[in-house]
Amino acid sequence: MYTMGLDFGSTASKGVVLKDGKEIVCTAIITSGTGTSGPERVKEKLLTESNLLESDMEAVVVTGYGRMTYQGAKKQISELSCHAKGVHFLVPDVGTVIDIGGQDIKALLLDKNGNLSNFVMNDKCAAGTGRFLDVMAGVLETEVSMLGEISMMSKSPVNISSTCTVFAESEVISHLSAGVNKEDIIAGIHISVAGRVAALAKRVGIKDKVVMVGGVAKNIGVVKAMEDALGKNIEVPKLAQLTGALGAALFAFEALNK
Amino acid sequence: MYTMGLDFGSTASKGVVLKDGKEIVCTAIITSGTGTSGPERVKEKLLTESNLLESDMEAVVVTGYGRMTYQGAKKQISELSCHAKGVHFLVPDVGTVIDIGGQDIKALLLDKNGNLSNFVMNDKCAAGTGRFLDVMAGVLETEVSMLGEISMMSKSPVNISSTCTVFAESEVISHLSAGVNKEDIIAGIHISVAGRVAALAKRVGIKDKVVMVGGVAKNIGVVKAMEDALGKNIEVPKLAQLTGALGAALFAFEALNK
Ligand code: SF4
Repeated sequence: MYTMGLDFGSTASKGVVLKDGKEIVCTAIITSGTGTSGPERVKEKLLTESNLLESDMEAVVVTGYGRMTYQGAKKQISELSCHAKGVHFLVPDVGTVIDIGGQDIKALLLDKNGNLSNFVMNDKCAAGTGRFLDVMAGVLETEVSMLGEISMMSKSPVNISSTCTVFAESEVISHLSAGVNKEDIIAGIHISVAGRVAALAKRVGIKDKVVMVGGVAKNIGVVKAMEDALGKNIEVPKLAQLTGALGAALFAFEALNK
Repeated sequence: MYTMGLDFGSTASKGVVLKDGKEIVCTAIITSGTGTSGPERVKEKLLTESNLLESDMEAVVVTGYGRMTYQGAKKQISELSCHAKGVHFLVPDVGTVIDIGGQDIKALLLDKNGNLSNFVMNDKCAAGTGRFLDVMAGVLETEVSMLGEISMMSKSPVNISSTCTVFAESEVISHLSAGVNKEDIIAGIHISVAGRVAALAKRVGIKDKVVMVGGVAKNIGVVKAMEDALGKNIEVPKLAQLTGALGAALFAFEALNK
């Protein structure tokens, strides 16, 4: 029995095909989000790669920012519930989930069954989000995907005193023109992100095990800085970008079996 | 009897020479702040233009961000107290002072003698500050000094839904690429600034007469948008940028007469 979970975000469309609610058959990520061809393309890609037909899917659940405009799903389920579900599937003993996306930060507290018991979110301020890193990568003329690796070479990270993206950008420009090494600047940027995100996560509560997901979880420098800020190990599941879609596919399976 | 007030900010150095605590003899503004040659140059300019010697000054008081690093003043007095004093000299029936600077927003509540009775400040977030306007002027490829005038031609200001400078910048870019008139975008930007600043000012209290000072008070578009947001007339004194230095010169006079 196959189910499909789709997660249509603002910048990417993601999908998972699940067999019998426990085996991940296929995953797909298209880097264009809702309002583009991304949603259709991710579905096509899933079906092509899994060699299945749309009619093979017993249920489809959709989540993410673009879920309401999408026709053809059995259910729409909120991102937060889907993330919680998906992370719990990957890391059954998860307690706190930290999700740094392109434009927001979320921290979720899960009970031992993987149900959401509390959350905090910030989507009003770019500080600490992927957008913050994009801005800094622009100033540093460095690919955002390279930031993590470069920062690992730092021996003495700079101090960035402003939290605000705009003011921190000016500090980065000053450091650059003072001839500071890029790795030390980038490491300082990651510490700034971690400080911001850790403060938010502490508001929801830090409960072992701590898991990081979202696009920024791919940045090893931010993950390490978060571990320092929280004084805890953090697990980043391999499918960190796909937890929303995975949770949706799990909800689709549950819906069939109710 | 002459006194001098100096205000060393982060982006400009300002000065006032006062005669007998009531007559403004001379004013000067240099657009480079503390840590540059600005502080020395503004002093020289004041003395040259007033045809006075440093020894003619009976007392010098310094205020502003750079006040602590400056030697050679009788006293350092906080910006807020100096602003209150200076504004009250210019507009004796002032109640609330709104000060939008390059990097911060302040709202001051004054008692009827011009003493500071309360204040709120935001210097952590660029939204609503002069920096916000600088960022937007950059995207619009327009001089920041032209924004006010251009916005007055707007007939239907755009809505900018994000308060955050970074997210609002993206909205402005979208409006531009959708071909929206610059005047409507700029008017929308001013409404956004006014919304942010009005919310802060309301926290301290809006008491007639409302006076606006600080660099952004030169932007007629922001002043009009603030009037709409508060439903009140706002007075902008001619020497709006000089109230800190003026207040310092007044304090210098008082110090001599105590
Ligand atoms: S602090 Fe900076 S990044 Fe955050 S909302 Fe304000 S302008 Fe945006």
